[in-house]
Parts: sequence; C-alpha cells; structure tokens
Amino acid sequence: MTRVRDLSEEQILERIVPLLPRGSATLLGPGDDAAVLAAPDGRFVVSTDVLVEDRHFRTRWSTGYDVGRRAAAQNLADIAAMGARPTGLVTSLVVPGDTELDWVTGLARGLADGCAPVGAGAVGGDLSGGPCLVVSITVHGDLEGRSPVLRSGARPGDVVAHAGVRGWSAAGLALLEAGLVRVPLPAVPLEVTDGVLLEDAWERLVAAYLRPDPPLAAGVAAAQADATSMLDLSDGLLRDAGRVARASGVRLDLDAGAFAKDRDALRSAARAVAAATGLGDPGWGPGNADIDGLVDQWVWAGGEDHGLLATFPADTRLPEGWTAVGQVHEAGPAGPVVTIAGQVQDVGPGWDHFRA
Amino acid sequence: MTRVRDLSEEQILERIVPLLPRGSATLLGPGDDAAVLAAPDGRFVVSTDVLVEDRHFRTRWSTGYDVGRRAAAQNLADIAAMGARPTGLVTSLVVPGDTELDWVTGLARGLADGCAPVGAGAVGGDLSGGPCLVVSITVHGDLEGRSPVLRSGARPGDVVAHAGVRGWSAAGLALLEAGLVRVPLPAVPLEVTDGVLLEDAWERLVAAYLRPDPPLAAGVAAAQADATSMLDLSDGLLRDAGRVARASGVRLDLDAGAFAKDRDALRSAARAVAAATGLGDPGWGPGNADIDGLVDQWVWAGGEDHGLLATFPADTRLPEGWTAVGQVHEAGPAGPVVTIAGQVQDVGPGWDHFRA
Repeated sequence: MTRVRDLSEEQILERIVPLLPRGSATLLGPGDDAAVLAAPDGRFVVSTDVLVEDRHFRTRWSTGYDVGRRAAAQNLADIAAMGARPTGLVTSLVVPGDTELDWVTGLARGLADGCAPVGAGAVGGDLSGGPCLVVSITVHGDLEGRSPVLRSGARPGDVVAHAGVRGWSAAGLALLEAGLVRVPLPAVPLEVTDGVLLEDAWERLVAAYLRPDPPLAAGVAAAQADATSMLDLSDGLLRDAGRVARASGVRLDLDAGAFAKDRDALRSAARAVAAATGLGDPGWGPGNADIDGLVDQWVWAGGEDHGLLATFPADTRLPEGWTAVGQVHEAGPAGPVVTIAGQVQDVGPGWDHFRA
Repeated sequence: MTRVRDLSEEQILERIVPLLPRGSATLLGPGDDAAVLAAPDGRFVVSTDVLVEDRHFRTRWSTGYDVGRRAAAQNLADIAAMGARPTGLVTSLVVPGDTELDWVTGLARGLADGCAPVGAGAVGGDLSGGPCLVVSITVHGDLEGRSPVLRSGARPGDVVAHAGVRGWSAAGLALLEAGLVRVPLPAVPLEVTDGVLLEDAWERLVAAYLRPDPPLAAGVAAAQADATSMLDLSDGLLRDAGRVARASGVRLDLDAGAFAKDRDALRSAARAVAAATGLGDPGWGPGNADIDGLVDQWVWAGGEDHGLLATFPADTRLPEGWTAVGQVHEAGPAGPVVTIAGQVQDVGPGWDHFRA
C-alpha cells in the first residue's frame, strides 16, 4: 500500500493531474505558476469553501472519492446560487504523510465526477503535509451577461421557491451515526435526484450526505427566469431563509405543507433512527417517539443539503426543478424574519465550527 | 484575552471583513454566496497556495500579521510571474478554537498590507475550526491583453535575469533558528527592497523570511518587455531555474559572479550563524568555517525569497528592478540543466513537505 510520504510532491501530482477534468473554459491548465481561465463576460464569480477532517467529514464514513464529490458539490452550488455557470476550480490539499495514495487519487476522481455535469475544469492546486486532511477549493463561474442574483433582492409579493433535496443530508448523517447504513458506499455514483424517494432507500439519504448533488442547472435557470434573490442552502432551510429575510428586509413565510412528500419519505428513516438511538438528543423534539418532530428537524433545520432557495416575481412560471414553498411579505413588527404559516421561527444558532 | 472559540463565526467575520482591502476590480465583495471580480481582458489568471502551521511558519516566530503578509506575498508573486496584475484574492482559514482573536485580525491586516502595493482586493473567504492553523489563498490577476509568460518560452541566446532579493529569506530563517534576532518584529512594515543591504541589517533578513516582499511590479514590466519565460522563485534559485530549463528544453548558464554583492552583504550574518551553531548541518559545506559555502547555499539554494527569474531576448533593455545573471544555451549532452560558469549543478531535491 502506497502512502503519500513514500512519494515526492511531484510524483503525487503526476498521479493526480491526469485524473482532473480540463473544462471548456480552461485556457492554461496546471503546471505553471498560475492557470488561465476564460471570462468572456468581462467578470467572474468566485467563492471558496474549506472541508476539515473530523469537522466536515470523517474518514471512517467518507472515502476520498466522497470528499472530492462533496467538495466539488458545495463549491459549485455557491456559483449556481449566484445564477452563474461554473467554469473552473483550484484545490489546496493538506494531507498527513500516512494517508494512502488511493485516498488522494480518489479525491481527484470525486472532484472530476462532481465537475462533469457542468463541464468545469480543475485547473490548479497546491499540496502540503499537515496533521489532518484539509480540502480547500476555490471555484469560478461565468454570469453570461446576467446580473448576479444576490440575497438582498427579495420583494414583498414574490414567490419563495426551492430546488433540490430537503432534509436528506441530515437524515443520511443520522442513519450513519446510528450505524444503520454500511459505508463506504460503492464507488459508482448513486443517482440522487429531486424525484420520488423510495421509503427504504436509505443509501440515497446517506449518499445525499456524503456526496451531495446540488441542482446546479436550476441556478442558471432561476437567473434566466429573473429570480429576485437566491442562495445555497448549506446551514439549514430556516437559517438560510433567515439570511435572505435579513439581507432583503422582508418576511419569508413558508408553507407548512410544502414539504409533505419529503416528510412522508423520511419517516421510515426517522423510525429506524429513533428505534436505534432511543431519541436521546433533546434537539429532536419533546417526546421520545416524536417521529414527526425528528423529520421536521431534518427538513427545516438540517444542514448540507445544498439545495437552492430563491424568490421570483409572483407571475413567474417557475423553471424546471423549482417548487413554490412560500411567499415574501413586508417585514412586520417582528422585523425581517422567517415564518411558517405565519408563526415566527427561531432560525439560529446553526453550525458553529469553533465549538464542535 | 478573546479567543476565537468565544465568538460565533459571524462575530469573527464582523471583526475581519472591515480590515480587508476592497480593490478596484471588486464588483461584489464579501457577504453573498460568491464575490464578483472584473476581468476586462476576457480571461483571468488564478493560483492557489496553502500555508500550514509548523510546516510553513511557526507561531513562536510569526505573528498573524506576518503570516498574512507572507500569504499575500507568495500568492501575488505567482500572479506577477505570469506577467499579470493581481486583482483580488479569497482566503480559507482553519483556526484552532484557542487561537487569540488578535492573531486572526492581525492576519487580516497583514493581507491588507500585502495587497496594498498592487491594489488587489480581498473579496471573500471561509472560516473553520481545526487542529492547526491553515491559510489557503487563491489569487487572481489580469493579463491586460498580454500573453501569459510561461516557464517554457526560454530560447537559446536569451539573457537570464533576476528581480528581488537573493538568499535573504534563508539567511533570515538561519538567524531565527540560531536565536540571533528577537521576534516578533514590530508591526510597522519594515521596508525590504532590492537595494543595498547594510552588513548588520539582520532584521531585514528576518523580515524577508517572515514577510517576503516580492518585486510584483517587475513581473508586469517583464511581460511588457517581452520576457520569453518567467517564474516565481519559491524553492530556491537553482531548483526553480531547473524548472525553466526542463520546461523550455534549454540549458541555463548562470554567472558565478552575478550575486557577489549579495554574498558580501550576507557574510556577516553567515559568520554569526556559524559561530552560534558550530555549523552542525552537513548541508552547509565541507568545512566547519565554510562561511562562503553557507552564503552560497543561501543565495543559490535558499527557498522562499519569492524573487522572479525571467529570460529576455538578447537585445532587450532590461526593465527597472531586473539584473542580468546568465545566458540561455542549447541543451547540450547533459540535457536541459542549470550550469554555473558551465559546471552542471544539482538542482534537486528541494522542499518536500511530506517528509518534513
């Protein structure tokens, strides 16, 4: 078994670079002091995200391939959330010397598979030793002449709409924590779509956690349909909806029944998790058998689904992949808040990586 | 004393973001899913570099300010080495919870001071907890209509030229390791220029290590003067020159006397280091009092000076900041190598972060 410390940095790069996707916007790929990407629009969108071992992933659950898929997905989702088309990314990778080379090449394959649906290239990177795995990706996108879709553009009267999965990632994490799904998942990518979820398709939920598959095309489609605001759902639906409410100075009212189909589908996983763990976490709800409370927790507060939340003018015909889930109202006496059927929701705190 | 674990991620960002430079290319700064940077040329240059605690810096020597300056400098140097003008950067930061908030705000100030000479903006970032400090920066640049200057363009007959300091960083590190200079250095930036180095200006050498000050303007000037190849000197002059030789398929012959002034200036530091340490490192040369060998080691093989090495057509009037240091020849029987006065040099191995 080859470990990274058995090879020089240049030997490792020789194994990784051929696995990386080139991308149609790549004018100069890896190998020089910097890469060159096309920006035909005269501007480009840029975002960065870092994944740290034992904070964002655990190697006993996630393969290198999984982490590559996830790193690509959550970065690409930030570009989609601006209404841009992803063009290329660079990666900084910190790897302990005893890491297996296969983990690192798996990461490259996961990045490549994550980029494939949008044709983005992996154009450069840096590699260092260190005490734990760190994957930092910076991703770029092309606005194709459109204005970026910000968080601050929601207007009273707009429709609130959602694209992607809801609560799947949190359910998948709970299934893993309860030991109910065997990992690693097969290397062949599981298809995770925004379609009907079979009641017993727990592997799909775990895949949604390990290898999120954001609705990237829905971001560009929303921008083309004149979405007034949009963001990537990384910290939970309510918390991220709260960011739109505050940035736009409005109240977002979500329909309690909007996610009924998701809750039905997640109920079997919730029953299994509740049975396996005894519902020990007080965050899950008031009662020991509060299955609906657990499902609600996943759907409304679960993080890392990387769906998109957007607002559209009321008369918009929603593009493919989008579902209406609420309405935008003037901020009332409670200020710019999120409500469900008119009831003010507590949208914080969510993730805080310094207290983990 | 405030530590980062005493604050939420959003509270930390509230302290950092106001310290960051905006930059004239910034169309949309921090706060949304992604930033937007101008790329008037229809392309942009992009590079990423990661600094890991106890690999690339030690907190007992480097303040947060120093690490910010260094991170900015080494990234901006990669953009300059393409002949591009830096426009903006994003930062991923991994911070242990017990890190002082002042370290993090110092980092932001160091980034700002590092970006100031070129007017680049700090447009976004990500923040996470983790077991050690990791600073990953991705930087972007504008080619202003020029072709990128690659490593592969050196041609027989070209002049080899250098800009920046030579051996200062390695000398500074040796002074620190020998305990001969007191750190932290004052927060007010020390001016480190490519001028005459006073014999006893050891703080200047230490500053060159802690807070390198690459000749960024010289990169654009070289491209405007039709440099045929260029790269950033991060791994030592000989090793990096070897990269140009191999990429271009040529022999680079360097003048033994080209750096005589540097060697004179570094000699007092070498004497002090030799006296303090007994010259215990066999890499320093054959003799126990081989001061010249130690100085040569710093000048020819010392890393992290972040000067620029370029080749120019023979009849070029070298732009400001550049000094002729050799000639490009056809690759002879020894292949694409680096020679000093015709003698083939061993250009490897250099840094290898997995064996550190």
